[in-house]
Amino acid sequence: MRSKRQARIRSSILIDDLLSEAKAGSRRAIGRLLSVVEHGGADADALTESTFSTTNMPHVIGITGPPGSGKSTLVGKLVDTMMDKGHSPAILAIDPSSPLSGGAILGDRIRIDGGQSDIFIRSMATRGHSGGLALAVPGALRVFDVSGFDPIIIETVGVGQVEVDITAAADTTIVVSNPGAGDTVQASKAGLLEVADIFVVNKADRPGADGVCRDLDLMLDLSHMTGQEDITGRRPPITMVNSLEGTGIEELRAEIDSHKRYLDAMDQRVAARHRRLQAEVLTRVQVDLEHRAAASQRTEAGKDIRTDLSEGRISPIKAAARLSELL
Amino acid sequence: MRSKRQARIRSSILIDDLLSEAKAGSRRAIGRLLSVVEHGGADADALTESTFSTTNMPHVIGITGPPGSGKSTLVGKLVDTMMDKGHSPAILAIDPSSPLSGGAILGDRIRIDGGQSDIFIRSMATRGHSGGLALAVPGALRVFDVSGFDPIIIETVGVGQVEVDITAAADTTIVVSNPGAGDTVQASKAGLLEVADIFVVNKADRPGADGVCRDLDLMLDLSHMTGQEDITGRRPPITMVNSLEGTGIEELRAEIDSHKRYLDAMDQRVAARHRRLQAEVLTRVQVDLEHRAAASQRTEAGKDIRTDLSEGRISPIKAAARLSELL
Repeated sequence: MRSKRQARIRSSILIDDLLSEAKAGSRRAIGRLLSVVEHGGADADALTESTFSTTNMPHVIGITGPPGSGKSTLVGKLVDTMMDKGHSPAILAIDPSSPLSGGAILGDRIRIDGGQSDIFIRSMATRGHSGGLALAVPGALRVFDVSGFDPIIIETVGVGQVEVDITAAADTTIVVSNPGAGDTVQASKAGLLEVADIFVVNKADRPGADGVCRDLDLMLDLSHMTGQEDITGRRPPITMVNSLEGTGIEELRAEIDSHKRYLDAMDQRVAARHRRLQAEVLTRVQVDLEHRAAASQRTEAGKDIRTDLSEGRISPIKAAARLSELL
Repeated sequence: MRSKRQARIRSSILIDDLLSEAKAGSRRAIGRLLSVVEHGGADADALTESTFSTTNMPHVIGITGPPGSGKSTLVGKLVDTMMDKGHSPAILAIDPSSPLSGGAILGDRIRIDGGQSDIFIRSMATRGHSGGLALAVPGALRVFDVSGFDPIIIETVGVGQVEVDITAAADTTIVVSNPGAGDTVQASKAGLLEVADIFVVNKADRPGADGVCRDLDLMLDLSHMTGQEDITGRRPPITMVNSLEGTGIEELRAEIDSHKRYLDAMDQRVAARHRRLQAEVLTRVQVDLEHRAAASQRTEAGKDIRTDLSEGRISPIKAAARLSELL
């Protein structure tokens, strides 16, 4: 026990050192802290305990859209204009693919990144259990926050429910569509329509861009009619962008700023932060309970339930009730 | 209490009636039972209790692949050849999109379906909580099973973890790639490489099909070297198909049959059925615990935790520990 406690003390000293270095601007320290977050476990917990209570209230921006909608280029151009305005953006790229191709997405960005040293980019894969990612995202936000980055951009490929949930938890959620997707209702899929604060039609020079814009407009009309709109009646703007050329990027930045002011006027960024904390707590409880349920399955009583289930003596409902009792 | 119990008795009588009709081949009864499954709740539980213990051991085939890989056409042609051989296939299409576009996928298929009455197709959306879908799929399998369908094909758009998990739980998992996807490692994304029993390169007439085939072959070589292969050393075959023309469909059907025989020789279909039952039980426990956690959050003690969390007095870790104690 004592050695475990000593290990914990050593680990928290190391983490406090890394935090000091990160606050002083060490990219190496920030990178190592993000790895701690990704790895999870006791070190990640120690980091959470050291960082949870302070915040500079950075603007958390979620950007999502189907693969091939040009999000990476868009985000690259967007952070350029943000840096021109004196901001220090960080990007957390949630990569739904396996480690095999994870490198490619990060690699693309590094070319965009070039020699700019005020921007920080981190790619995280969604492989493994979703609870891990649901905890890694708030952890990474805290690391970026204490390191002084603002805004923090979370970029996801918005197909899975997990990715949509993560993007939707941002202060400002941007949904990117483009005429090349072939399916004009792509943006409305997986519930993206409901969570968008700003729509971007990317590749606006291509044929069909006006059509995508009209479709989005129509869908907003429909959701207006069915009462699904924001309670305040705010209608998400649709911004036409050509991220390769840089057209419309400044307009998008202005829309993002405008949405931030709108949120602040109603204390909605504080509310969003609280919602993220609540969601993190629920995830932690769920992960804990899942571990306990899995452990119960491995006990003798758990094995009996399993046998009865496999041999058709009890239903999945009865088996679940008996397993719940073991917890 | 009595009226609730009476309602339960009425509901289970209704469900037993529907089950008798479904066994006699009533498509209307099967459709209503699938709606019961989708809707969840007490009726779905009554249906589970009535169906869990009997099985005809239908072959459960999972088919997944990125959007646009031509899965629908492929499945349409595949069930044609299965029906020619005297089988009665059912298709469960898991649609990752919102209800808005859900109709399109089903609509496409109905054209393929034509006048054939031995095939049953049901589309389910993944919107809403994933626990709902994780319970709806085994429920739908049981409805198809007791109604005498064999094989049962579960078709998902394989991007989200939920969809991949569902497909991977099948007896035989087929992963569809095609040269049009632009990204040849698409098939390996989201862990599809590890779960595939059979690879299909669709649209085999298009330029680049051979390249996709080579890439898959190379990835199988790599996973062989790193020891990730099937413990028995079986290497998943790669089948070239042009589902529009129908080329390669008969070969695919033969590969599926061959894999079924391979599984049966080692009792692996019984094992897969047991794994599906175990997974269903764990989901049921988790859904129950999530409901209890959410309910705890709404109690006075839960609200206190929430306030302490929002005001930065306790960390998300401490908040989760206190919430767990309330359960």
